[in-house]
Amino acid sequence: MGWVRTRRDSKGGFSFVEVNDGSCLSGLQIIADEGLANYNSEVRMLQTGCSISVSGILSDSPGKGQRVELRAEEIEVFGWADPDFYPLQKKRHSFEFLRTIAHLRPRTNTFGAVARVRNALTNAIHAFFQERGFIYLHTPIITGSDCEGAGDMFRVTTFDLNNLPKEEGNVNYADDFFGAPANLTVSGQLEAEIYALSMGDVYTFGPTFRAENSNTSRHLAEFWMLEPEMAFCDLQGDVALATEFLKYIFEYLLDNCKEDMAFFNRFIDSTLIETLEGLISKDFEILTYTEGIDILKNAEKEFEFPVKWGCDLKSEHERYICEKVFERPTVIVDYPKEIKPFYMKTNEDQKTVRAMDVLVPKIGEIIGGSQREDDYDALYERIEEMGLSHDDYWWYLELRKFGSVPHAGFGLGFERLIQFVTGLANIRDVIPFPRVPGNLAF
Amino acid sequence: MGWVRTRRDSKGGFSFVEVNDGSCLSGLQIIADEGLANYNSEVRMLQTGCSISVSGILSDSPGKGQRVELRAEEIEVFGWADPDFYPLQKKRHSFEFLRTIAHLRPRTNTFGAVARVRNALTNAIHAFFQERGFIYLHTPIITGSDCEGAGDMFRVTTFDLNNLPKEEGNVNYADDFFGAPANLTVSGQLEAEIYALSMGDVYTFGPTFRAENSNTSRHLAEFWMLEPEMAFCDLQGDVALATEFLKYIFEYLLDNCKEDMAFFNRFIDSTLIETLEGLISKDFEILTYTEGIDILKNAEKEFEFPVKWGCDLKSEHERYICEKVFERPTVIVDYPKEIKPFYMKTNEDQKTVRAMDVLVPKIGEIIGGSQREDDYDALYERIEEMGLSHDDYWWYLELRKFGSVPHAGFGLGFERLIQFVTGLANIRDVIPFPRVPGNLAF
Repeated sequence: MGWVRTRRDSKGGFSFVEVNDGSCLSGLQIIADEGLANYNSEVRMLQTGCSISVSGILSDSPGKGQRVELRAEEIEVFGWADPDFYPLQKKRHSFEFLRTIAHLRPRTNTFGAVARVRNALTNAIHAFFQERGFIYLHTPIITGSDCEGAGDMFRVTTFDLNNLPKEEGNVNYADDFFGAPANLTVSGQLEAEIYALSMGDVYTFGPTFRAENSNTSRHLAEFWMLEPEMAFCDLQGDVALATEFLKYIFEYLLDNCKEDMAFFNRFIDSTLIETLEGLISKDFEILTYTEGIDILKNAEKEFEFPVKWGCDLKSEHERYICEKVFERPTVIVDYPKEIKPFYMKTNEDQKTVRAMDVLVPKIGEIIGGSQREDDYDALYERIEEMGLSHDDYWWYLELRKFGSVPHAGFGLGFERLIQFVTGLANIRDVIPFPRVPGNLAF
Repeated sequence: MGWVRTRRDSKGGFSFVEVNDGSCLSGLQIIADEGLANYNSEVRMLQTGCSISVSGILSDSPGKGQRVELRAEEIEVFGWADPDFYPLQKKRHSFEFLRTIAHLRPRTNTFGAVARVRNALTNAIHAFFQERGFIYLHTPIITGSDCEGAGDMFRVTTFDLNNLPKEEGNVNYADDFFGAPANLTVSGQLEAEIYALSMGDVYTFGPTFRAENSNTSRHLAEFWMLEPEMAFCDLQGDVALATEFLKYIFEYLLDNCKEDMAFFNRFIDSTLIETLEGLISKDFEILTYTEGIDILKNAEKEFEFPVKWGCDLKSEHERYICEKVFERPTVIVDYPKEIKPFYMKTNEDQKTVRAMDVLVPKIGEIIGGSQREDDYDALYERIEEMGLSHDDYWWYLELRKFGSVPHAGFGLGFERLIQFVTGLANIRDVIPFPRVPGNLAF
């Protein structure tokens, strides 16, 4: 059972029908001959997109391009697809056009393959963490906190916006559904820390949100993020887990999605498989931010963004370090505290924090993480320094008061990962229904 | 490494320290004797909630209640927990109180067990569908559609509510982030149908939302829902999959969470395991809504809500049918179309639709599903009858125009499932951070 991709009639009184059911990239070749009761009335009318079921005998195929074929004994047509109206005809369509028919694009080779790769990498993620005894945790989507004071947030409300209850000109959130301003989460990390400090090793994997008005090929307003959090773990443990994790999921992908990955390697980017195999086999280079800045300062390359100690690293810097200098995946640790969030543990130098970014060729940062500040006084002070409110973080502070332990974690944007492994240039093509400024279709 | 549950000093110059690391219900008994360097300075100061690491020799335990114990050679204290302030002392706390300290409650036996059961059932769900070749699909959280015109929705916006852009007194959504009114999804079903009609069998498992102002023990504003959707599948196939699924996950749970389930069976509801074993071993009864109504009409029991053909079944009716009449899990099919959503396939009688509800003892409905209307004209008419807009469902209609196939699916509320298997009376206790009217803490 599946959907017709093509039909070709032979002069010998039979037709070849290629059917795909979405379970893999390859279709099945059907041999339908004029002996079928509905050969002239239906089979010869089949067009791209029609849905059919076929029973018959699976046989070795003498033809090129497939090992087996199905010699039809019965073909039932479920649904037609009028070629005058069906937008997915047998030709190349632009990704831009396909985004406008997101209800049909998973019927194409590319988007079917993306769906299977997403599924496989989700399985890889769960397998990796479950094998290691991590507990999968569902952190809340609607939240009153804003994680790190970073990232624009979406407001969630049940107010009738045409009829807002106001007091002295201001909205009174006490009357809203939750009795307080509510936002969509930008990260489950802080809540994951709660469970790490109760149950050891945990991970979240769910949707997160950014209300940034960025209409680029790398930004989504809604995307999935993986965030493991480990108790009794320092920055070195965090780096070790992140690198082991990446090797594991890339190996899983190459083992489990051979046909789809060969497809992306052939049609999207011919260095994909080689790059992933390199990541699996090579040791990761580990260096400090300060060492990285020295390398960049002495580089012969001209950078668009000039480098000095204290600046944030851009993609061009990250790629130079891992592609040109070390020719391998690279982890940079110990970033200046000024460019990192309040919850990262301050090093003894009081200038840097126990942060890490994992860099890979072509895209730069793929994972960002840190050891968390587990000292109550240091965290209290850092919250103050950053101009945040202790009241907003009362429970986060209390975790450092009662049985605090060294702990660490990282975050991985799932769609950036899919972009990296498939080579697809636009992030809107690696999620089923992209949410971006001005677009909420489907 | 873990958190101290209790410490008990013996007169013989040593202490028993029970440590739990969250990986299972049981703690590990540590024998710490006065030979330890920090025995008097630290070990004898350990209190409930302190975090420690212990190295030593794991030995058979002569004591009661554990098979092994750890004879400490070194104990390191990471974090203290001042008993004057630490709220989780060694005594029973009410669930109401524990909800106010959701950052600490996973350190208790009950909430640790809930977290492990959630994790195990998530694994069971993925295992069941992956073994059967289903593709896991991420459907969008922010949506412009409202699925079935049912259920109050949360509005999502980046407007400054104190400074709304208005045109002729009304909010102009063209200026909002997505250029249109945006809501939090109540179901991923319609989008899952897109992928089912491309790739065969798929499932979604993610957060869904209801803005219903219900402050009950069975309602959450944010909860996780599982929704499989199968192409080339009718109502009978849907019923078969749902019953097979329930047996699978209950068996998985009893096999993989023995200790936690024994705990719930002992302290929460002593019929839990027996009930689950019954569901696994018994065949499900299948009857039509019309047959169910006849049974209820002829019942000797007085119902709070009187019964007549066309009425919705309440929990009292559902429980009577499966607990008293059939004494087994029961599936009711073919409900009156008036009480079901527009997308369900109309039966030939034109009065009922191919809906199913799966009923289990104690809670009644645990799964609801249907075969979907796959006929373009019938769906078009039904949308009109229900007063919905064809424009809002243009792509949903098109799925019936191009390669339509019989398809079906169901929905399972994950937290109701966790309530059912743990026996916990309040749904706020089976999700890490409950979202309910007036409460957005953590």
